[in-house]
Parts: sequence; structure tokens; C-alpha cells
Amino acid sequence: MSIREDALNGTITPLFESCAATEGVTVEVLMAGVAKGTIAITKNKNHDFDKIMAVGKGLSTKVNANIGASKDYPEAKQELEKLAVCVNAGADTVMDLSLGENINEVRRGILENCPIPLGTVPVYQIVADIVEKEHKAIGEVTVQEMLACIEEQARDGVDFMTIHSGITRDALRRLKGDERLMGVVSRGGSFTLEWMSHNQAENPFYEYYDDILAILKEHEVTISLGDGFRPGCCADATDRGQVQELIHLGELTQRAWDAGVQVIVEGPGHMPLDQITANILLQKKLCHGAPFYVLGPLVTDIAPGYDHITGAIGGAIAASAGADYLCYVTPAEHLKLPSAEDVHEGIIASRIAAHAADIVKGVPGAFDKDIAMAKCRNNLDWKGQIALSMDPEKAQRYREMGNSYKGDACSMCGDYCAVKVFKKATRPGRCPSEQK
Amino acid sequence: MSIREDALNGTITPLFESCAATEGVTVEVLMAGVAKGTIAITKNKNHDFDKIMAVGKGLSTKVNANIGASKDYPEAKQELEKLAVCVNAGADTVMDLSLGENINEVRRGILENCPIPLGTVPVYQIVADIVEKEHKAIGEVTVQEMLACIEEQARDGVDFMTIHSGITRDALRRLKGDERLMGVVSRGGSFTLEWMSHNQAENPFYEYYDDILAILKEHEVTISLGDGFRPGCCADATDRGQVQELIHLGELTQRAWDAGVQVIVEGPGHMPLDQITANILLQKKLCHGAPFYVLGPLVTDIAPGYDHITGAIGGAIAASAGADYLCYVTPAEHLKLPSAEDVHEGIIASRIAAHAADIVKGVPGAFDKDIAMAKCRNNLDWKGQIALSMDPEKAQRYREMGNSYKGDACSMCGDYCAVKVFKKATRPGRCPSEQK
Repeated sequence: MSIREDALNGTITPLFESCAATEGVTVEVLMAGVAKGTIAITKNKNHDFDKIMAVGKGLSTKVNANIGASKDYPEAKQELEKLAVCVNAGADTVMDLSLGENINEVRRGILENCPIPLGTVPVYQIVADIVEKEHKAIGEVTVQEMLACIEEQARDGVDFMTIHSGITRDALRRLKGDERLMGVVSRGGSFTLEWMSHNQAENPFYEYYDDILAILKEHEVTISLGDGFRPGCCADATDRGQVQELIHLGELTQRAWDAGVQVIVEGPGHMPLDQITANILLQKKLCHGAPFYVLGPLVTDIAPGYDHITGAIGGAIAASAGADYLCYVTPAEHLKLPSAEDVHEGIIASRIAAHAADIVKGVPGAFDKDIAMAKCRNNLDWKGQIALSMDPEKAQRYREMGNSYKGDACSMCGDYCAVKVFKKATRPGRCPSEQK
Repeated sequence: MSIREDALNGTITPLFESCAATEGVTVEVLMAGVAKGTIAITKNKNHDFDKIMAVGKGLSTKVNANIGASKDYPEAKQELEKLAVCVNAGADTVMDLSLGENINEVRRGILENCPIPLGTVPVYQIVADIVEKEHKAIGEVTVQEMLACIEEQARDGVDFMTIHSGITRDALRRLKGDERLMGVVSRGGSFTLEWMSHNQAENPFYEYYDDILAILKEHEVTISLGDGFRPGCCADATDRGQVQELIHLGELTQRAWDAGVQVIVEGPGHMPLDQITANILLQKKLCHGAPFYVLGPLVTDIAPGYDHITGAIGGAIAASAGADYLCYVTPAEHLKLPSAEDVHEGIIASRIAAHAADIVKGVPGAFDKDIAMAKCRNNLDWKGQIALSMDPEKAQRYREMGNSYKGDACSMCGDYCAVKVFKKATRPGRCPSEQK
């Protein structure tokens, strides 16, 4: 029985109990969400980790961090360092997006050390492993080799996989017929199209979708339906290609559920901020309430070096409109492979967006953190403020940079701290509002 | 004749022509906005600078950066360095929020070197200068001394001044009667209350508002009506005290307009993101369309060290809902006086928020920048991408950190760049959507 089947059958398992405890909801609520498909528990039966989490409706907004080697930086060691940064900075999940010669070694190294769910994009292995090592063209890889890659990763213990099954000839025709500025910016999407082009054939991840689902179900892998046609610039947002693919993703969601496989649906991308709420609604309707996993969205294209901020703006709006899962963006986006420091910055920015949304989503316990911080601020309790900070290390470091950090105020105002002056001005018997 | 009176009389002046050119609108549109009060041109007749700008409806969203010495860091030199950072990073205006022994020297130094509008909070001078030097209590400063400070700064050339005239006994009674966690976090607000408390009297900036307006009109200073009761934590947002003060600010707006003085209204502060749009509407209605100048808003309290990001989220939402002017927040907020680096980070974050909003506000030329960037990205034109970046220096530095920066892709994907693969996969005669 798969997790989804257990939920449908009402079979309470230790996994559900553990996950419900992590999420702070009842087992019944959790299982009802999994049965309906509005919640996914990303946990491969071959990957052991303690803190079982879930993503979806009624739960806190989750943050994913992408790491992974590249052809320019193929070393596994750097990626293990980034993994440690991810866990330390509070990422809920991590994706290994490696390309490069050591792809299998990197993935296995990460899995061995990964105390949170791990995701991958198997088509990267197909390219980095088979194409590179056998000096083939992408189009020469066989469908059997593709399925074998997915199976290998499932056996390794990958918890969720991005698969671009929604890129059909039909969707591509609509994309090409529209006025898109940037074509396809999804790496997996472009590889898939290159295969289709070479073979003059339909997308193999669409044609062999049932075979893929059978593998995923066996190893208890959640499918993350990739949005290969996500807009790569604000001008391309919400266009025909993107929406056509989303319609396919909704159909594919239902097929996966029917096959006993849990589903997450991926979404944009670059998008002007007034289109975000409508996009969340569209996905929730077309994909029957499946958890929505957005990349950003980036609300402008012109801030390379600061796309973690651009993405935090979009992510906060998206999550407060109902997106369940934010894929972080780092300051390195559009410029280079992120460093460990970029990874840290990206995670904190996304966590801010997720938390700002959780306050307005009414996620239990979320606003309590802000209230606790406000009380510490009002009491000039610096130890408490630091401890409650999203990044206590940076907060402490910044505080210590100020000359007056050993006093009870900070170096912005010193003795003229408004909190102190206000208390003095309004103490009983002296407050100007007490008199007529 | 003041700027406002000229606009009301339909007298086209070189100032209006220069400002209209900067803002990319017609002189008629600009003057109609100034006459109606929905646009303010912050320009003291004693402060000479070239690029006359304006803030308000139909114009691009502006960004203000706060600098200024403090008791712990009283040196003028550091603040002049920060001023240079502000101008270089693209701040539209700057405010000198100095406290500390050299307050007049710092202000005059900044004014001499300031090619953009400068704002101040005169009550800070009242405290730092009179109170500190004469060893008085805040409450012992006379109304005449207060008015003299305002006049001195107006003569010096300060372009806009924050004055907390909306803090009345009435508003304080409502604030105190509500369940506010953090009281008053506005420094100017708390000083004003301390004066009121000491003298058991009404707010002098309210009682002597007509005298203040006369001074401001004479020197052509825009009044920026301070929100002394802005919420200091998300839990305090949109409460009785805040809204009562806003009602007063609306009345004071009308009185200033009637006296020929231009007005900006200041607003929150800390605020859950689902309250921002309603707050903008409220201000626009209660203050008759006066330009709205928001601090943040900060959409969570728990991210000290990253409040530039928290503020960018709130600022983007606020500006897209109609806020006209964003006061930046730096990573140092709540922790220490900002360094030059913090100032830079804060400005860029606010500019991202302002630009993301300008795209959806339909500000002429705003979205064109994103389209130009998208075209450069699609052409792998790195020189163009760097030049179009909000911070070209950082974008260039990041790009150079990547191993493959001399190639046409970046170190994230290298040869597997989606843009390159997509073009190959879909070139004419090969595109999989061309076949049936």
C-alpha cells in the first residue's frame, strides 16, 4: 500500500502519526488531505529521516532549496557543504539539481546525509550521465534508459521527482504561436524538447506516463509535475503555452492520484505581481487542489544579484494567495551557480516570504512568533529578540556591531529609544491622555 | 507665490517644466496633480539641485533613504559617505534623521552636498540641540524654541519635514484604551508625547499648526505629516490609535493645502500583508488623495537582520495598491545604526519593490526595462544584461565569480543552458510542434 492508498483506506500508520506531530495537525486532518490530494508527504520508502513533513493545504508554507554540482563546478564536497547550510538555515526540503560528471556520486552523497526530503530532476541524470559519458545526442537516449534512470533514483531514495510530462506537442504549438520573448527557460523542459525534436516524437514523459507512475508508486516517490513552459520573463507570464501546459498538468494530476501516486504541481517563474493571485487560483482549480510549488515568482526581471528579494516579494504574495511550497531563489540566480552563502541568503529570504504568508493564512503558531518578538522588543529584551530571530547568528552579529549593544537600547537611538521615552511619557499619573 | 499656489493659479514656471521632464509627464498633468494635492514637489527655495522630482499619483514610485548620525556615532563624515552611497544607489530623496551633538553641522554638510531632496524631523534637533546642550528636559523646551528650530531648518534649505501634528490627546486616549503591544515606536512621536506629558498640554505641533504652516510656506517646505502612532509590530496594525491619528492627518492635510503648503502623509510600519491594501485605501480616502509615504511596511516582526527584505515585500504590495513613496528599511533596522553597506542594501531592496509596483501601476517606461532585459537574456547578451541591472556592479561581480563567465552561458548550466537548448530544439524544420 502506498501512502496515498493508506490515506484513502483510512489506515493510520506511524508515518501519518509522525507527520501529523511535525505539522501540528491531527492525524485525521492530515490523512483526509492526503486522500483528497491537497496534501503530499514527500517520503521515499528507501530514505530514512526523522522529521516527516508534508506540504499542502492547511499546513505551514514550506521552503525548498536547490543545490547541485554543475559542469563548471562538479565536486561533490561543495554540495555537501551546501546541504549542511540548507539544513542549518531551515530549508524544509532540498533538491539536487546537479549536472556534471559526478552526478550519481553527488546525489548519493547528499542522500546519505540528508535529514529532510530530497528531490531531483531525473532528466538531468539522463543528460549528464548517459549523454555525456556515452557521447550521445540527447535524442539518442532510449525510453528504456530514461525509465531506468528514474528507477535508479527511486531505488536510491529520492523523495520527489520533477518530471516534465506536461510539455506536449500541443502545448508547444500554442507556445510557439504566441508572442513569447524567452521561449523555454526550464532546463528539463528544453532537454525534453530536444529529445522530441531529434525523434520527431511526442514527449516520452507524457507517452510513458503510466510506466513512470508505476515506478514512482513502487518506491513511494511523489511526482512533482514540472512546468517546462514557465515564463522566463515577466512579459511571458500567463500566456497560452503556460496555461495549456497547466491544463495538461491538471489531467496528469488526476492520473497520478488514480495510480496511487502523490502529486505536487510546479509553477512560475517570472510574473508581474498583479498576476500572481490569479495564477494561484488557476492552478488550484485546474489541478483539483494539488499542492502548488512555485519558483519565486520573480516580480521583475531587472534585479540580477537580488533575485532572492524579487522572489521573496512574489513568494509572499503567492503563498498568501494559497501557494503551499516556495522554491527559493538565490542572489546568484541568472548569474552563476550559487555559493554556500548564496544558498543561505536564498533560504532566509524564502522563509521570510513563507512566514509572512503563514501569518495571514492563519497557520497555527505562526503569528505567535511575531507576538513573542513584539513583547521582547517592548521589554528591550535583547536575548529574547535574538533567540526569536529567523537568523539569530546574523541578528547577534549586527547587534554587536553597534557601539551601545551592551546597553538596553541600540545604536540607532540610544537613550532616545522611542520605547523608553513612550513608557516614561505615559506612565500612570503622568499620561497626557488622562487629563481633560 | 508657493508651488501649490502657482499650480492652483495655472502659472507655468521653470520648476514645473523641469519636474515634468524628470517625471516624463506633461506640465499640465503635473500641475493638475499639484493643484489637487495628489502630487507634491519637494523643493525648498533655498536648496539648489538640478533634478527636480515629484511624488504622487501617476508618477513612478519614489524611494527615500534615511541617514543621520546618532549619539553613538556622531561624526558628520560617515553621514556624508552614506549620502554618496544614497545618490549612487539611486535613492530619490534622503532624510537626515540625525540625533547627537553635531546635528546642525551634519544637516548643513548634507545639504551642501545633496543633489536630491532632503527631509528632516525637526523635533530631533529640538532634542539633540536644545535639550542636550542646555541640559533641559524635553518638556522644558518652549514652543518658540520649537518654531525657531523649524524656521532654522527651513532657511537652511530642507525640502520636506516630518511633523507629528496628528498625535493628539484624543488619539492617545484611543491608543491607550486599545490592546496595543508596543505603544509608540516613532521617535518623534515619543518626544512629542513626553513634551505633552511634562506640560500636561496638547501637542504643540497641533496647537501651533498654523504658525508652522506659515513658516513652511515661506520657505517652500513640503510638510510630511508624521504617523507617530504607526504600529511597531504586526499585532498593533490598523488599531484605534493608528486610525484615529490618520483621521487627524486627513484634516491637517486639508488645512495645509488651504494654507498653500504641499503635503505628504506618512504611514506604517509593521503590518500583516493582508492589511496593506486596505490601509492604502483608507489613507487615500481619509487624506483626500495626498501622496502616501510608507515605512516598509514590514510584513513580519521576526526577521531582524533582513528587514530590507521584509520591507520590500510590504513595499511592493503597498505601492502596487497605490502608495507613492517608500521609505527604505535596511538590514540594520531594530539592531543598530545602518552602515554605508546597509544603506546600499536597503535602497536596492526598496527600488526593487518600487519597480515591481511601477510595472503593475503602468508607469510609462517601467515595464520596458523588463522587456529589454528579457531580450538580452534571450540573446545571451551579458553586457546588455549587466547594463540593465538595478545594481550593475553587483551583477558584474557575481557573473565574474562563475567559472564560465567568459562563455555565452553562466556557471549554473554551462552548455546545457535552456535558452540555447530550446533554440536548437525548435529551429525551423526541426521543431516538434511543426509535425502532426
